[in-house]
Formats: sequence, C-alpha cells, structure tokens
Amino acid sequence: MQQRSEETRARILSAALNQFATQGYDAASVDEICAEAEISKGAFYHHFESKQALFLALLDDWLAEVDSGLNSLRKHSVPKTLLHMTEILPAILATAGNRLPMFLEFWLQASRDEQVRKASLQPYRHYRDQFAGLIEEGISQGTLKNVDPNVAGQLILSMAVGLLLQGLLDPKGADWEKTGRESMRIIMKGIEK
Amino acid sequence: MQQRSEETRARILSAALNQFATQGYDAASVDEICAEAEISKGAFYHHFESKQALFLALLDDWLAEVDSGLNSLRKHSVPKTLLHMTEILPAILATAGNRLPMFLEFWLQASRDEQVRKASLQPYRHYRDQFAGLIEEGISQGTLKNVDPNVAGQLILSMAVGLLLQGLLDPKGADWEKTGRESMRIIMKGIEK
Repeated sequence: MQQRSEETRARILSAALNQFATQGYDAASVDEICAEAEISKGAFYHHFESKQALFLALLDDWLAEVDSGLNSLRKHSVPKTLLHMTEILPAILATAGNRLPMFLEFWLQASRDEQVRKASLQPYRHYRDQFAGLIEEGISQGTLKNVDPNVAGQLILSMAVGLLLQGLLDPKGADWEKTGRESMRIIMKGIEK
Repeated sequence: MQQRSEETRARILSAALNQFATQGYDAASVDEICAEAEISKGAFYHHFESKQALFLALLDDWLAEVDSGLNSLRKHSVPKTLLHMTEILPAILATAGNRLPMFLEFWLQASRDEQVRKASLQPYRHYRDQFAGLIEEGISQGTLKNVDPNVAGQLILSMAVGLLLQGLLDPKGADWEKTGRESMRIIMKGIEK
C-alpha cells in the first residue's frame, strides 16, 4: 500500500514536470496533470494540496538530487572538495535544462507574491550556508585564509547561479564545465593559504 | 520637430516600463501603453514596430545607463577599476528593482523562442567582452596574472548576475554592496600580480 502511494506520488511529479515544461507553470492545470499521470483528482489532492505545493515538491526533489551529487564529491580536504564541485555543473545543466522555464515562472511569481518570494529564497540560503560551512571548516583546518565565510560562500553561490542561468540560456555559448572549473580555481587562489 | 519626436519616444518608453512592471510583459497591451503615454497608435508604430521591439529598446537603454555608470568608474589602473566597479551595484539594484519581473518574462520567452533567446544573450556577451577586455589590458600592463581573460571576465559577469538576481529577490537578505565589494576582492586576490 505504502509502495503504491509512493508510485502515485512519483507519477504525479513526473507528469507535473512535463506539463510545467511544455505548457508553463501558469498554463498547466491540475486536470491535465491528473490525466497524464492517469490518476483521479482525489488521489492528486491526497498527495498535494495545490499546484504550488506540487511545484515546491519538484524544487525540493531537484535540490535533494543536487545535494546528493555535491555530497558524493566530498574529498578529504576542503580546497579539493571545492575544486571538484564544479564537476557537477554538466549534470545540473542537463537536469535543469527542461526546468528553466519553470524556475523563471517561479521567480516571476516570487517577484509578485510575498509567500512565494520567501519560498524562492530557501534554496539560496541553503547553498550559501552549505558553502559557508565548508569554508569555515577549511579555515579551522588551516587550508584556507581567514576570509569571511559568508562572503566567500555567497561568491561561490553567485558564480554558480550566474553560470547556470547563462549556461541554460546559451548551452553552446561556452564550455561551461571548463569555465566553472577555472572560475573556481581563480576563487581558490584568492582564498587558499 | 525632432525634439518632439524624441519626447514622444521617451513617453512611450516610460509608459511601457510602468505597464510591464505592473501588468507584466505578456499582459501589457500596446493600447494601454498608448493610453498612458497619451499618444495615438499611429505614433506608437512610428517609433516601435512591436511590443517586443519596445522591450528590446528598454533593455538597450538600461544597458546604456549601466555602461555609462561603469565607464565613469574607470580608474588609472585595471585592478582599481575592477574593485571600484562594485560601487555601481546599489544603483543597478535600484534601477533594476521594478524591472525584475520584466527580465524574468523576457528570459521565459527566450527559453521558448529562438529569436528572443538570441536577443537575450547579447547583454551577456557584451559584458563578458567588456570585462575580458579590461583583464587583457591589466595583463599587458603587468598588473594582472596571465589568466584566461574570457574565463576571468565570465567569472566577474557570473558573480554580478548571481548577486543581482539574489539581491533583487531578497533586497534585505544581505548588504549587497559589501558582499559585491568583498567578492571582487577575493577574485582580485586570485588574478592580481
């Protein structure tokens, strides 16, 4: 029973991702998502209270994927971990590709709706804190200079967001993996002891 | 006559900016823009062939403003110029504030329409080339290390785009000017001789 419920949830999420990517978030309807997932509206509302809740669940799932990718790149030293993190860029670009319109619509909603705006800030804070934590660790282990961990964490996050946005709009405009790797090297030269 | 024509153009641009910011790009109509600017549709189409052309003109004007701000910060040495450039962040955040929804809708269109996508890439390339040119200058003057100017230019641009996006969504989330300034210092430590 539990397993069937999880399968239903996964089917809803997959149908929603497809509907959001093809129709856009605003135009996609719960009816069409249910039709594609081949479930009843009752089953839908058993899992998600609204289209927005569904969207936030998709965002969470995607962030969890990115997190587990980042964690798998954890190396012995902080500088090595930071340098290796850029290896994940191509995978993020690949999975985020069909989600770009969805993210943009989400930010658009965020710019107009206070509740959505707050939800949209969570991933930013999550990653800034992750990066700042790593940098603090490097400082206390003596491999990094005594920089402000929040500033350096924010710098890595800003670079990643900027690269992702441009990489998604212009996939062939540059070798994004190389650009990310060499950008991180420049940052590391600025913060490594 | 020439002067009146320029005044009409400026009135259309100002009305469009307001309509796009309040209604959104998609919902804003040429009729309402004409009504707000108090001009005829004939006069509108004399100046702009479409709503999209109007949008691109707004984007160009905004980029010209940013360019002249950046040029006014030009200092004697390249490292000083780069460090001072972050002073412009608060002004960009202020003028971009009511344009964020418009930019997001534009990127959304860009993700779905090849012609718009190409137009959306121009500002990116423009600034990457500007930054790369500055860095090349610094290398040849001996103040910067022999880094890849395109990578370093892209890094500065990515950082700026990431900071702007987050600063616009979360104006009070950090001291963005300080964050920009200290981020640039870290980058400079990575590329300065």
